[in-house]
This record gives sequence, structure tokens and C-alpha cells, in this order.
Amino acid sequence: MIVVLKPHATDAHIESVLAVATALKLKAHLSKGVERTVIGILGVSADKETLMAQFAQLEHVEHVVPISRSYKLVSKEARPESTIVRLANGATFGGSEVTVCAGPCSVESREQVMETAAGVAASGARVLRGGAFKPRTSPYAFQGLKLEGLKLLREAADAHGLAVVTEVLDVRDVADVAQYADMLQIGARNMQNFTLLQEVGNIHKPVLLKRGISATIEEWLMAAEYIVVAGNHEVVLCERGIRSYDPMTRNVLDLSAIPLVKSLTHLPVVVDPSHGTGARLLVAPMALAGVAAGADGLLIEVHPNPAVALSDGPQSLTLPLFADLMQKLGRVAEAVGRTV
Amino acid sequence: MIVVLKPHATDAHIESVLAVATALKLKAHLSKGVERTVIGILGVSADKETLMAQFAQLEHVEHVVPISRSYKLVSKEARPESTIVRLANGATFGGSEVTVCAGPCSVESREQVMETAAGVAASGARVLRGGAFKPRTSPYAFQGLKLEGLKLLREAADAHGLAVVTEVLDVRDVADVAQYADMLQIGARNMQNFTLLQEVGNIHKPVLLKRGISATIEEWLMAAEYIVVAGNHEVVLCERGIRSYDPMTRNVLDLSAIPLVKSLTHLPVVVDPSHGTGARLLVAPMALAGVAAGADGLLIEVHPNPAVALSDGPQSLTLPLFADLMQKLGRVAEAVGRTV
Amino acid sequence: MIVVLKPHATDAHIESVLAVATALKLKAHLSKGVERTVIGILGVSADKETLMAQFAQLEHVEHVVPISRSYKLVSKEARPESTIVRLANGATFGGSEVTVCAGPCSVESREQVMETAAGVAASGARVLRGGAFKPRTSPYAFQGLKLEGLKLLREAADAHGLAVVTEVLDVRDVADVAQYADMLQIGARNMQNFTLLQEVGNIHKPVLLKRGISATIEEWLMAAEYIVVAGNHEVVLCERGIRSYDPMTRNVLDLSAIPLVKSLTHLPVVVDPSHGTGARLLVAPMALAGVAAGADGLLIEVHPNPAVALSDGPQSLTLPLFADLMQKLGRVAEAVGRTV
Amino acid sequence: MIVVLKPHATDAHIESVLAVATALKLKAHLSKGVERTVIGILGVSADKETLMAQFAQLEHVEHVVPISRSYKLVSKEARPESTIVRLANGATFGGSEVTVCAGPCSVESREQVMETAAGVAASGARVLRGGAFKPRTSPYAFQGLKLEGLKLLREAADAHGLAVVTEVLDVRDVADVAQYADMLQIGARNMQNFTLLQEVGNIHKPVLLKRGISATIEEWLMAAEYIVVAGNHEVVLCERGIRSYDPMTRNVLDLSAIPLVKSLTHLPVVVDPSHGTGARLLVAPMALAGVAAGADGLLIEVHPNPAVALSDGPQSLTLPLFADLMQKLGRVAEAVGRTV
Repeated sequence: MIVVLKPHATDAHIESVLAVATALKLKAHLSKGVERTVIGILGVSADKETLMAQFAQLEHVEHVVPISRSYKLVSKEARPESTIVRLANGATFGGSEVTVCAGPCSVESREQVMETAAGVAASGARVLRGGAFKPRTSPYAFQGLKLEGLKLLREAADAHGLAVVTEVLDVRDVADVAQYADMLQIGARNMQNFTLLQEVGNIHKPVLLKRGISATIEEWLMAAEYIVVAGNHEVVLCERGIRSYDPMTRNVLDLSAIPLVKSLTHLPVVVDPSHGTGARLLVAPMALAGVAAGADGLLIEVHPNPAVALSDGPQSLTLPLFADLMQKLGRVAEAVGRTV
Repeated sequence: MIVVLKPHATDAHIESVLAVATALKLKAHLSKGVERTVIGILGVSADKETLMAQFAQLEHVEHVVPISRSYKLVSKEARPESTIVRLANGATFGGSEVTVCAGPCSVESREQVMETAAGVAASGARVLRGGAFKPRTSPYAFQGLKLEGLKLLREAADAHGLAVVTEVLDVRDVADVAQYADMLQIGARNMQNFTLLQEVGNIHKPVLLKRGISATIEEWLMAAEYIVVAGNHEVVLCERGIRSYDPMTRNVLDLSAIPLVKSLTHLPVVVDPSHGTGARLLVAPMALAGVAAGADGLLIEVHPNPAVALSDGPQSLTLPLFADLMQKLGRVAEAVGRTV
Repeated sequence: MIVVLKPHATDAHIESVLAVATALKLKAHLSKGVERTVIGILGVSADKETLMAQFAQLEHVEHVVPISRSYKLVSKEARPESTIVRLANGATFGGSEVTVCAGPCSVESREQVMETAAGVAASGARVLRGGAFKPRTSPYAFQGLKLEGLKLLREAADAHGLAVVTEVLDVRDVADVAQYADMLQIGARNMQNFTLLQEVGNIHKPVLLKRGISATIEEWLMAAEYIVVAGNHEVVLCERGIRSYDPMTRNVLDLSAIPLVKSLTHLPVVVDPSHGTGARLLVAPMALAGVAAGADGLLIEVHPNPAVALSDGPQSLTLPLFADLMQKLGRVAEAVGRTV
Repeated sequence: MIVVLKPHATDAHIESVLAVATALKLKAHLSKGVERTVIGILGVSADKETLMAQFAQLEHVEHVVPISRSYKLVSKEARPESTIVRLANGATFGGSEVTVCAGPCSVESREQVMETAAGVAASGARVLRGGAFKPRTSPYAFQGLKLEGLKLLREAADAHGLAVVTEVLDVRDVADVAQYADMLQIGARNMQNFTLLQEVGNIHKPVLLKRGISATIEEWLMAAEYIVVAGNHEVVLCERGIRSYDPMTRNVLDLSAIPLVKSLTHLPVVVDPSHGTGARLLVAPMALAGVAAGADGLLIEVHPNPAVALSDGPQSLTLPLFADLMQKLGRVAEAVGRTV
């Protein structure tokens, strides 16, 4: 890290910084400029946050600039080659395939999930998505079918050769979800639920880690680091839109996060244009754009009859719209050297 | 709710909206303007989100505007008089007293917490704050002393007539934290950890609910609704800064949230200028401003020696700075008809 | 517009709203719900903002919801077919062609602009972009070659069959810029410089209107309305990234704005992935994604030697990188039924 | 500035950075850490932006960190003592007085502005505010009385010993506005209208510089630098709320900007709680909070009959509400050692 002193800092102020470095067994490297003195601190290992804070609050320190990244295991430096995450049915994230996960926002009934699974499999999806435990802003909104929903997802997926990805909300449900799902989703609201991250780090199933509603790229990678450091290396990152100031869309889908994150980490990155936009009209263009930007997969909400969906109807594709999108995705994927 | 149709919507489009209303046993109220037809939907009760979505995805519906608020029990309409939350030592939130909670970001040692408790009590604080379970962006950062930290907080508070407020991160720790603390804090990252909200809704201790890092006022009140609907009415809201675009401060402290929230809910509102700014220089002015804006209390980070703090040193006040602030707070509180 | 009353509004409060409507010669339409009364106001014509404000400040009015859009002439309702903007050299925006504008951030020298024009024309660009008048955050930064820069752009473009687009900053420079350029750019910082919008509305050259740094879609369309209402119908909208909270990129490029805006207006929409990301690494993926999302054109910063560029070097492509991008753009455009 | 290299940068990469520094006649200072090499660049003078860009785009440079601030003349280092800006009627900004500017959003009629001036002067305001040239999002909204409005402001102010502050939108109007007003306001939308900043820098009247709608603190100070470097040292900064994600308020008033900016610059800072919140209910609490946070003045919208205001009625105080606020302001100002 680099400690930047205020203009007019005296030798005594410089000494106080050097003394803290010495006390912490760190090397310091002094550089006096015309306006300001800066002091490089070398040898920082694990707890960068704490150390930065200890320097930052010294008198006449203007600010402290981190140099090394806080994430280690998920960084491209730690592992230059891309991680390929493989699900039980053979679908992969991180290779040349663009893997499409599709299904309803919420599992509502056996009929709904069976019809959806059949339809999305026929169009080329490899993974069935669907919520059994639902995080809802309102305590009065439908909270999901829970264990029954998990069983329905498993049954529907098995009938069509699909894998299952579904969200886990509570540390107490991790074992149940892991029993029925092939991939556990950590939702945007739980991206910094650190004890939940640790629990899914302890299991041996892939994890889909959604970006928090206003998470920075670095916070998102640190959340992945929590899972990997606990022992689970199979993490897939999912961009799902960030909060912005314009009420016209639910979120702003940050597609630049795809190439940016892929330059920083070896983990695969997928895109959720359904939550990322909140509007059916925008799902297909943003799905195509996501693949053009280099996404390793997509999460698409599909419902056989969105008009009666218990959640997220306005952003769900019908089965015919999904089939049409898959055709177009194939062409764009081919244009960028990938397959769907 | 109001369903706004696109221009050029035909009678058939209008009929399709009315048919959905009829199917859902809701009354509809048609109003044709020059450009657009709007249809008021009456009789909506609990699950507004789902119903809005069902209308929003109909063809030629432009958007659906909610009319009633989603929160019920926390609203001023449900209870016009202010809720006063009282802690075991007699400190209150929501009355004429401005209650100051002070203490270290993290409990680090018996000596540190005892010295802090003695100092802040002497200056007029009524509640000892301090983290035993710490949510940290990095898995490599100090995670808190956990159970040992809880015991130290209790001991230090009891020695000086203070109450204890401390954060709970995990549903599995709620009972432990409730045993030692007088008030359980839900941190900003967990504001939409709905199962944790339900668990603290099941206990009989006051809850301090921090606003999420980019939560809207409505989402924040809905999070409070989760706690209250579970049976715990003693909720204190805490504004702690929202995420913004300027890297110069850690957060933007939204003081307008105080009078705004107080116009919408009967629950008390306090302010955390320490996390809300991230800079020691800004803590005192923003604490004074918070009281001038009508806050029912303050959370202030105080550390006997911020230079060696394991977290948040740069925003912690020393004990002399805190004592000085309490003097000034008394004068501003008096100017707006309150006491500290 | 719809006036929503607070719960417990009395008949007298309702009457006061109706009285204002009557005084303003507007029709009112009353709808009493269980919780709230809402009053539709019909017949609102031009100055919606003022009228909404007059209702909003009445006692017991909770809020006022606009129903009709504020923009008229630029809306799809006013003109369902797409506007095609054609430049002097035959390049178009809004048809099946994806028109690429390329060139340096700033015009720096005759040699630089001639070399760039030759290179980008050879790779298939149709328009030369470059700044002669530069808006710079710092008064100490390079402010552009001004009139000399305009002449160099014209000369270089003419030598290679390109059109010229360049920014105008000051109402006093509009005539000069219009003399040398084929298209006048209004930069992000000037999107709500209303007198400048009116001046470019008075000329007979196409205008490229960049989205403001944190402009909503509605504000952006209203800025276009200023130009069109003054008499100039040849407006091309340009998404160039919006301000967000993550310091890792300069802006967040909001590609969802492309399909969204195209659903609301008949005007063409192009994308600037160079300013939209601020990082060379991200320009090509986001250019491809922009075309996949439906953009009618692209603005790409290209410099023959970015290492010595006087502005925006880090986000400029070299000529070989640009040539490579144009190849890829052709393939993605074809995949979505367009040509480059 | 500090150039941070990527991990695994070779000696050749280091040499390429040093070569650029040598070519630019800057000194370089090498520091090799365990993970990364950082190179301090010393001797940077005026055009920091350009120089940073030239280093940032070199191969294997991860990022470039600025060390010195871009603003010079407005910084506290350039002038440690506070600037006191004095208007023609003796009102000051930057001393112990908290100067209140009050008046209507728009000048609408002689009667309206005379009545308002009389009322606000009687309650203790020292400056009459009011818009003659109005920046409006919609071309169909009321655009102000222009020159006639300026004359009415002058007449009303003179009748009551008030000074006048009013906005100038267009470089062509600067002379007219300067003739009638005592202080020229640069509005939020024009904070980066650099040619307008230069023009008001050329006159000899104080300037009120509003913070841009999503301007960083540094951008705001750089805008002030444009005015001061042109020769006009009498600049007062005005916090007026920044754009955020919550539709419930028009803006988020960033009161922490007051102590923060006062630690960085010698210029006075005032607060506009009317535009900063957009809601009458929030104006008084935020005005009080602004004074408690250290503001040197306030801008308050006051209208004798907000129900018929042509703009901003919902956030305007009536004359009795303003009189009441002035009483409270006096008490809070006294509590923090100031006078109103």
C-alpha cells in the first residue's frame, strides 16, 4: 500500500508513519515529491484492510492507496488458466459452450415446472432454473414452495436431462438444497451474507454467485474468495444488474463486467438479463449482447403462462419467445467463436 | 394500483385488463383520457407485488403504478403515535431524549472495551456499541471475538450502567446474542436477509435495523415490517449512509431520511455518522446535523487508541473527541427542543 | 396525471383538489379505494411539470403520478416509423447499416488526424470523429485546437470519403462547427445546456446527442425534444455510459438503453464504448455487445499512437486493433441481420 | 502520481515506464514489492490528466494513482485562511454569519416578487433569490421572464435592503445578469459548462456555484478552479443534492460535503435544502441540519402562494413557514457559535 501524506507534513509526521511500519514489521520506502511525500509500505500479507486503516488514521496522512488486490485465490495471477465448472449432466461453464439456464422465477406447481422443463430442454437449455426458497421484499409476497419446490425441480430436470440450479437463502437449508440441486445459487441480496458464503464453501457442489445489488467488482470477487478459501473452487459469477437512478428499468445490466471480471479472475461469468432489466422487451437483446460480450452462460426466466406467474411475470419469456431467442443466440455465439 | 395503457390501446386491450381484474375478484375503475386510458384496480390486499406483475405483463399495458404502500404495521396510519423503544437500563429511543450509543467498531480486548465503556459513560452515552461478530468484505480480515466479545461487552456495560447493542450475523447466533445484548443490530449487508429478520422478529429484545447499503426507504420499511409482522414491535431504524459515486467518502449519509421516515412510520430513527462518512473529520459535524434533523439517537464509533484499532480506526473518535462532541450535542439538542 | 391522496383525506381535501382542477379547466375523475382516494386529471396539455407541482403541494396529497410522457415529437407515437439520418457522404443512422464513427479523442496535429482518417477509412469506418473544442474537467488540461482542428478534420475526412462529427461546446461556436462538420455533437456535460440545444435545433445539420452523465432516459429524450421542437429533426442519440459507484471503470455502459429507447422513440441510437468504459480492454467486447443489442452505429476512439495521445489514450484503440474489431463487428452484425 | 505495474511485469516493462518518464522530463522512483512494482513519478505540474493517461496505457501498467490534487488556487494549501465573500448590501459568506438567501423558484410577477421580498426581509433573509432565466427539463415548461424578471428582482431587493442572486444560463446573458444581480448563480446542470464558467470568471461579481447533479467533490472544486483561474476569486459553493437511486426524494442532500469541502478549500459553502430534497416537509429539518454541519449560508425557496407557483411549488415554504424556520435557525446557529 502507499501512504500519501498531506502537503506540509513535517519530518515528525513522516517518522510517525515509519514507526508504525516498523512496529508492524513492514518495510517502508520513502519518496519525497514537490508537493507531497509518499511512503510505500511493503510486505503486507493477509489483513490489508486493518493495516490500511492503521496508517490512514495517523495525523497528516491524506489517504492510503491499496496496491495489491484483496482477492488471492480467485485472481488470474493465482491461476492463469480458466476454471471450467462442470455440472452432473455434462453442461459446463468456462469452456467454449455458452450454457443456458432457463425456467420460472418461482416453482409454482408440478404442471408448471414440468411444462417449462420440457419446453426449455427442447429449445436447447442445459440447466433448469427455478426458485423454491424466494427472497421477497415484502413479507406478504409468495415465499416459495420450499422443500416441495426442490423435489419438483429435480423431477422435472431429470425427465429432460437438465441440471438444476436454485437459490439457498438460509444456512440451515444448505444441506437440503445441495441434496436436490446440481448448483446452489447465492442471490444478490445475500452476496455479503458471509456465513452463508462459508457454508456453501464447505460443500462439494458448484455455486452460482450473483453480484450484489450495488456491489463493486472487488466486493463481488471477495465474496467468491470467501467460498473458495473455504474449499469449494467451483464458483460461477453471475452479473444480474446493478442499482441505478433511473426508475424506468429495474436495474442496469452491467455487461462491461463480463470482460472486466474475466481479465481479473479465472472463474466463469454468466449473465441474467431477466433480473438485469426487469422487462420482457429487453431480455432478448441483452441476452444476445451478453454473449457478444463474452459471457459463459445465461440465466433466462421462462414461464409457460407469464400472465399468471406468482413472481416476475413481466420479465418472463414465453416458451415460443425463448425458442426464438435460442435460435438467435446460436448465431451470435457462432459469430464470436462459441457454441450454445 | 393503477394500470396505465399505452396510447392506441383498443377496447380489446381494455377488456383483457378488466378480465384479469374480474378473475382476481378485484374491482376496476375505467378512466379514458385524451392520450391514454388508465384503469384503477381496487380491493388489493396482501400480495401487491404479485398482482402488479400480473397486470404489468399484459399486452398494451405501459406500466402499473402502486397506490397503497406495501408496509402496513410499521406505517403511521397503522399507529399514529410514535413508538418508544426502552432498553433495560432505561435509555429510550423515540421520546424527547437523544440517546447516544458509543463504543468500538470491534471488541478487541477486555482492556479496550472496559476503558471505552468507562469513557463514553462518563461523557453521557447510555448504550455501549461494539462488534463481536464482524461482517468483513475480506475473509482475511479480523472476524471478531464472537462469544468472548459478547461477554466482554456485557461486563463492561454493566460496570457503567450502559445497555449493549451488538450485531448478529447468523440465524444460529440469535439466541446467544440475545442472551448478552439489550438490543440486536441487523447490519446493512443483512437488511434483506429475510430469514434473519424473521428470527429477530421471534425474540423479545429491541432490534436496531440498519438501512441497506443501497436500500430505498420503502425497502427499509419493508424489512422492518418483516420483524414486526413476526411479533417483535421494538424496532429502531438506523440511517448509516448509502452508496454513491464519489470515492472521496465511504458513503453518503442521507440525513433527509430522518424527517422523511418519521413522516411515514411510528418507529424511532437514529443515525450512524461514523459508518455514514468513514472519516473522523466528518463524524462530529454530521452527528450535530443528525440531531438538528430530528434523529432519536446516534451511533458513534469511539476507540481509546484508534491507531491500533483492528477495524474502522480512521472513523473512530478518541475519548476526548467524544467528550467534546457530547458537549456540542447537548447544545444543539436543546436548540431543537430535545435532551441528550 | 393521477393525484393520490393520503389515507384519511376528508371530503374537504378532495374538494380542494377538484377546485384546482376546475380553476385550471381540467377534468377530474374521482376513484375512492379502501385505503386511498385517487383523482385522475384529464386534459393536461403542454406544461405538465407546472401542473403536477400545483397539485402535489396541496394538503393531504401524497404524490402525483404522471401518465403521459413529457416528450411528444420524438415519441414513437408521434412517428411510428424509424427516422433515418443521412450524412453528406451517404452514411446513415437508423437503417440496416451499422455506421461506425472512429477517430481520435482530440485533434492534435495534421499528421495524426490524416493517418487516423486513412486507417479507419481503410477498415470500413464511414465517419471521422475527433475533438476540436474539448470539455476538460481541469482548466489546466489541453482544450483542443479549436478552429484549426475543425479544418484538419474536414481535410482529413474529405481525403478519404468520410463524414465529420465533432463536438460544439458554446453557442457562439455553432456556426463555425456547422461550417466544417457534417454532424454536431452535444457532449454529455451539455445534454441539459438548453440554450445550446436550441441553437443546434436552429441549424440544418444532423446532431449527435450524448446522454448526460447521470441522465434518465426521459431527460435524454426531453433534451432531444428541445432540438426537434426548434425545427431540427435529424437527431441521433448516443449512449456513452452513466455514472455509477464502482471506481474500477470510468462509467457503466447502459446497453439496455438501446432497445429501451428504440421502443420509445423513432430516433436512431448509437453507442460509444470508448467513453462508456474508459479502458481499451473493454472497448471491443462492448462494441460487439452494442451491435448485438441493436445499436444503429458506434463511436470508437482510435489513435495511431495512444502512448502520446493528449487525451483518452488509455481507451483508444490502435489502428490494427480497430481493423480487427471491424472484422468481428461484421460477423456479429450479420448474425443480427445488419451490415457494417 | 504513482504507476502500479501488474504482477509478473518484467524489467522490460519497467524500462518502458522509465523511458516515458525520461522523455517527459519527469523523475521516476522505483519500488519493488513482493507482488508488484510501483513507480513514483515526480515533477508533474499542470496537465496531470494527460500525463496520467500516457502512463496508464503502457503495457503491464495496472493503474495510475494521482497523488496531488488537480485544483490549485481553490485549495486550502494555496490559501489557508477562509475567503469571505461580501455582497453589495453587506451580507457575507464565509464569516461567522449564516446568510440566508430566500425567494421564489421563478420570478412570476411584480406582485409575487415584491410580496416575497418584503416577507423574507422581515424574517431576516439578507439575499433575494429568484429565477429569471429558468433551465427546464421540458421545452414546454415555463422558461422564465428573462430580462423583465431581472428588473423585478432588482426593484424588489432594493426596496428591502436585500442583495440579489439569480442564475445565468447562457454566455450571451452574463453582462445583463451582472448588471442587475449582486451574485451570479451557475446552476447544477451547468457546473461543467466550461465556457460559461470562464465568462463568469471574467467579471467582478461573486458567483454561486452549484454542485452538479452527480458531480464528485473534486469535479466541483475543479469547476470553481475554472472561475478563479480566470480572475474571479469570489466564489461560493452550493450543495444542492445529488442524484440517487431512491425515487422517494428528488435528490439526496449530501450534508457531509459541507465539512469535507471546508477541509479542502478556503471558499465558503452554502446549502440549498429546497432543491436538495424537493419536498416542503424536509426543507426545515435539512436547513437546520445544514447549519449544524457548518454551512455558511442557505438558499430557501419561498413563495407567497405555492399552490399557484409556476415551478417548484411542492418544495416552497410559505412566508409564515419561513418565518418560523428563521426562528429555529437562529437557535441552532447560536448552538454552534454562529449567527443568522
